[in-house]
Amino acid sequence: MKPHFDRIAFIGIGLIGSSLARVVRREGLAGHLVVSTRSANTLARAEELGLGDSYVADAAEAVRDADLVVVSVPVGASEAVAVAIRGHLKPGAIVTDVGSTKASVIAQMAPHMPAGVHFIPGHPLAGTEKSGPDAGFAELFTNRWCILTPLDGTDAKALAKLSDFWRACGSNIDTMDPQHHDMVLAIVSHLPHIIAYNIVGTADDLEAVTKSEVIKYSASGFRDFTRLAASDPTMWRDVCLHNKDAILEMLARFSEDLASLQRAVRWGDGDKLFDLFTRTRAVRRSIIDAGQEVDAPDFGRQAAKKS
Amino acid sequence: MKPHFDRIAFIGIGLIGSSLARVVRREGLAGHLVVSTRSANTLARAEELGLGDSYVADAAEAVRDADLVVVSVPVGASEAVAVAIRGHLKPGAIVTDVGSTKASVIAQMAPHMPAGVHFIPGHPLAGTEKSGPDAGFAELFTNRWCILTPLDGTDAKALAKLSDFWRACGSNIDTMDPQHHDMVLAIVSHLPHIIAYNIVGTADDLEAVTKSEVIKYSASGFRDFTRLAASDPTMWRDVCLHNKDAILEMLARFSEDLASLQRAVRWGDGDKLFDLFTRTRAVRRSIIDAGQEVDAPDFGRQAAKKS
Repeated sequence: MKPHFDRIAFIGIGLIGSSLARVVRREGLAGHLVVSTRSANTLARAEELGLGDSYVADAAEAVRDADLVVVSVPVGASEAVAVAIRGHLKPGAIVTDVGSTKASVIAQMAPHMPAGVHFIPGHPLAGTEKSGPDAGFAELFTNRWCILTPLDGTDAKALAKLSDFWRACGSNIDTMDPQHHDMVLAIVSHLPHIIAYNIVGTADDLEAVTKSEVIKYSASGFRDFTRLAASDPTMWRDVCLHNKDAILEMLARFSEDLASLQRAVRWGDGDKLFDLFTRTRAVRRSIIDAGQEVDAPDFGRQAAKKS
Repeated sequence: MKPHFDRIAFIGIGLIGSSLARVVRREGLAGHLVVSTRSANTLARAEELGLGDSYVADAAEAVRDADLVVVSVPVGASEAVAVAIRGHLKPGAIVTDVGSTKASVIAQMAPHMPAGVHFIPGHPLAGTEKSGPDAGFAELFTNRWCILTPLDGTDAKALAKLSDFWRACGSNIDTMDPQHHDMVLAIVSHLPHIIAYNIVGTADDLEAVTKSEVIKYSASGFRDFTRLAASDPTMWRDVCLHNKDAILEMLARFSEDLASLQRAVRWGDGDKLFDLFTRTRAVRRSIIDAGQEVDAPDFGRQAAKKS
């Protein structure tokens, strides 16, 4: 296959960046792939893993002559990257990112993008609870959605080229207004992570139930939350700080609904509980039917072996 | 292997009852296994599946001459079962249950148990989001905890016999005070289910984000909650109604913590967010180390196939 881009530069090589690097190499999508990250240890590890063709610490050096620049750093670091690379971008280059919030990334990066460079923000909805370059794998994006949030006046050819690139990585493409993206992600991703972090924190703080009891008996429900609550703390701190309004809106709705549910428990309103518990079943069925979830019990976890 | 009991009667044959029936037959733990359930359809299905040696609709008839009676019905139905069987139990029989709440089951059943019958409440911490006799499987209890909450004065030999039976089914045994059981389960199981039901309800009610968007993009976190929220509505209504005090206590703590987290989001307290998000990671690691969770990313879900 002919490479999609002669030269691709990755700024950041964590779970998402390293997964993308792996699929880019597997599919031969880059003539040359430059990997860049500020951490010397991570850069050395990326080289050991053979994730790129060359490795540089300096983002400005990495983007020189690159036709595609993929920024995959915690969203709070977006502006610093934009400032570092703005004077070194090739005219006609496409600059994209993979951040979980879009309005904030645009506010941080767009003002620094030179004329003649195509800045097209993006967000692959893919990830696991693991982080770092060792955690990546080439299949991460298979059959997952990548949402692009092009700005007004985005060049149609550049958008098509970036979309084709993501499709070649296995993704399905949607485009969306950045504000709407941030609202959608607040409910499907940010609120779930915050709730998971919160309940794990609540359990960790109890006096009447010991930590060892929480751990021993976690298979009865609690452990499902611990996966999201094991996600990268830096990434999720930044998401909370950079999608504040939409997150606060979803938190308010969640808490209002929970207060109503709590009242039903207190006053023994079994019909109300039964109605909600029935309605929510259908949602999972729809997700399975849409190919976004497995149908096997317990997520298809393998039963733990008797020790 | 010599059967553990000459005659075992199951009252209720849903996910738990049918899983237990399967392992009892596989391991040869019963000389004769009688299956009983009020629903004619379910009873016929249990017979088609070959879950027992005989099948009767009437619980009173089922328990006649049984050495072990296992009640596996929604906890709200416990007293009705106790009333139905109390005049028909064999002297020296062991009566146990599998309910998710223990103080309420004891209050419903213990007053009806005749002298000479050993009533030993129990709770296998095992299950999936599926329900009904077809959903059961013999490995459900392997390496999972079964908590027994014996009453004061329980016969030590009967307790040992019931414990051996559960061990033969694959379980590890703990004993616990019923009130403490209910507090522990409120945090490791009941609160997680209620929170999962609630967030799925909140998402289902949004106007600004469509249902199809929630479903399409659910793999970014939301789908993890839908598994618990697909659990049996009758069972979970009864749990909420029958462990009210402990659940309200845990809901209050959760909401208090969430309000504090929400405040950190509103005021941009990144350090506070980072500290919580770091602390919760260790909890998952402990659960994996305890053999109660898989270490594979995404619970080891198989990546969805490209359609």
